[in-house]
Amino acid sequence: MDSRNIRLAVIPGDGIGVEVVAEGLKVLQAVGAKAETTTYDLGAKRYHATGEVLTDVVLDELRGYDAILLGAVGDPSVPPGVLERDLLLKLRFRLDHYVNLRPVKLFPGVETPLGGARPEDIDMIVVREGTEGPYAGAGGVMRRDTPQEIATQESLNTAFGVERVVRYAFDKARSRPRRKLTLVHKTNVLTYAGDLWSRTFDRVGQEYPEVQTDYCHVDAASMFFVTQPERFDVIVTDNLFGDILTDIGAAVAGGIGLAASGNVNPDRTAPSMFEPVHGSAPDIAGQGKADPTATILSVAMLLDHLGLAEEAARVEQAVADDLLERQTGWTARTTHEIGDDIAARVAG
Amino acid sequence: MDSRNIRLAVIPGDGIGVEVVAEGLKVLQAVGAKAETTTYDLGAKRYHATGEVLTDVVLDELRGYDAILLGAVGDPSVPPGVLERDLLLKLRFRLDHYVNLRPVKLFPGVETPLGGARPEDIDMIVVREGTEGPYAGAGGVMRRDTPQEIATQESLNTAFGVERVVRYAFDKARSRPRRKLTLVHKTNVLTYAGDLWSRTFDRVGQEYPEVQTDYCHVDAASMFFVTQPERFDVIVTDNLFGDILTDIGAAVAGGIGLAASGNVNPDRTAPSMFEPVHGSAPDIAGQGKADPTATILSVAMLLDHLGLAEEAARVEQAVADDLLERQTGWTARTTHEIGDDIAARVAG
Ligand SMILES: CC(C)[C@H](C(=O)O)[C@@H](O)C(=O)O
Ligand SMILES: CC(C)[C@H](C(=O)O)[C@@H](O)C(=O)O
Repeated sequence: MDSRNIRLAVIPGDGIGVEVVAEGLKVLQAVGAKAETTTYDLGAKRYHATGEVLTDVVLDELRGYDAILLGAVGDPSVPPGVLERDLLLKLRFRLDHYVNLRPVKLFPGVETPLGGARPEDIDMIVVREGTEGPYAGAGGVMRRDTPQEIATQESLNTAFGVERVVRYAFDKARSRPRRKLTLVHKTNVLTYAGDLWSRTFDRVGQEYPEVQTDYCHVDAASMFFVTQPERFDVIVTDNLFGDILTDIGAAVAGGIGLAASGNVNPDRTAPSMFEPVHGSAPDIAGQGKADPTATILSVAMLLDHLGLAEEAARVEQAVADDLLERQTGWTARTTHEIGDDIAARVAG
Repeated sequence: MDSRNIRLAVIPGDGIGVEVVAEGLKVLQAVGAKAETTTYDLGAKRYHATGEVLTDVVLDELRGYDAILLGAVGDPSVPPGVLERDLLLKLRFRLDHYVNLRPVKLFPGVETPLGGARPEDIDMIVVREGTEGPYAGAGGVMRRDTPQEIATQESLNTAFGVERVVRYAFDKARSRPRRKLTLVHKTNVLTYAGDLWSRTFDRVGQEYPEVQTDYCHVDAASMFFVTQPERFDVIVTDNLFGDILTDIGAAVAGGIGLAASGNVNPDRTAPSMFEPVHGSAPDIAGQGKADPTATILSVAMLLDHLGLAEEAARVEQAVADDLLERQTGWTARTTHEIGDDIAARVAG
């Protein structure tokens, strides 16, 4: 990878997505990564112009890149859910991003709503399954708009899908100092899906005697994210529980403006995609108010995924330094200014 | 109701359930409510002695009471999930407790993990659906223990079931000063179930022009419970999302030791059941360490449900006073002592 350019597809998307991605790219350049970027105007504008969201032709083109950087999708002018499903989720599913990797980390100097929490208390990684579960889109409706209507929604879980993400999580846990992995589910109620997850977790765990394992129901885990975040090191969980937990994680680790994520295809049969956890925030779009930090941290994850560990570490360190300085002498900065400051630290 | 005794079925259950229920009954007596209680030894002990959890004969007997007070169920000696499903969930389903009512309220003087939150910021009621959704137990498994295994878990939602709980929530919202009701779901992903919930919410809402309505995805709502709890007044949501949200709610409102709940059958075709949100906590059982406050607040909800509003208010006030005093000159008290103190306040 070092010897050639990174071929990067960029999907700024909607709302603040455009603004934060520009800063992410600025930092990517500042760190000296040789990247050749191609921008795709997927999102609300394209939808209104063509009626299309993500065609198979574009999807196939995207397969040719080393990685994808995505800003955010969703706009009030588009029927709710259309861009989320036909763009974001379609990318995750079709590019087989079965690991949705979401660090929950409190950087020193960052204010957390949790009065007593210190950085060493909040330092975990949520490994969220990304291609199945309740996100499969399965379900139906009968006798719509009558008093007898019934609507079903089905969670589909396969041994194939669960095992590969569980295995990834064990590998991840083994590589960290604490070597602890917690399975989060709701096995006492969601017995069929829960049982598959538990059995798989136990079976794969036998190959990792050095990893300490643990189980927590999703309701209790949600509580512990607030009251005892230090319980967790690596968490593996299903698509929907991971969605919820990582938003709580973002809340306790300083806000959605700092939460990065990677939609990872560990087998590298298709490019992985990196994006901030936040949405397109149409209410503040175009005003320079968005914090690009989550996108910049997502760029660090992208670099790491592509084997550029040293560059990734420099970006993360620059963010850490910037966050520490916000504590003292804080003055409000625009999206651009934050990007400039972090880029300058990275370059300098 | 005033003129005759309350006929109360008491299910202390397992672990700390036994200890906290004793204090709840103490306070019920202190407030002067004439109650005739019958204790049912359902739970782990009965299961081991007879192999039974909740027979139809016992269930039918329970139907004859005015209300049920439950402590907690679950014990490490019983296969996980058995008591939860065959006792707790069976009671909720068979007695048609379609409203699982869970106040999330920060009492003055209570410490919250949220640094900046004041009591006026955290004062909401979660109306959790209690009889369907992902709790229906529907699903299956195929090719178990092979690499081709698939496990499904189905959420069943009916117009009948959704409308009645939504209607209850609108009534509840109308009765509160802020008159605000938020629907929480994940409509952008769980499209079939979400669409039924949204359409029902909008349709019923037209009958309540005085109630301000709002929608929030479950991931965002989970975050806002931590960062902006003041957004919420009344929330209506499905069984699983309500389970998760109310544990976050308990966390931010001072801990699971204070969280009360009512499993309510608003049509009064069967007795409603009141219980603390916490579990049986086998690790601290029998040591007098459990806080009975959640159970005592559940007794207040029980009194209110039975039309004894004045008694309910006295119990809640006594708890509020006790909580306020914990702030100053706090000394650790046993389960008994807390019960005694609150009972004394109620009586005095
Ligand atoms: C936009 C939505 C479909 C998405 C999800 O639910 O995965 C988002 O909440 C996220 O967490 O990336
Ligand atoms: C014990 C369990 C089945 C139960 C639930 O999930 O409803 C509990 O978590 C609760 O919230 O009362």
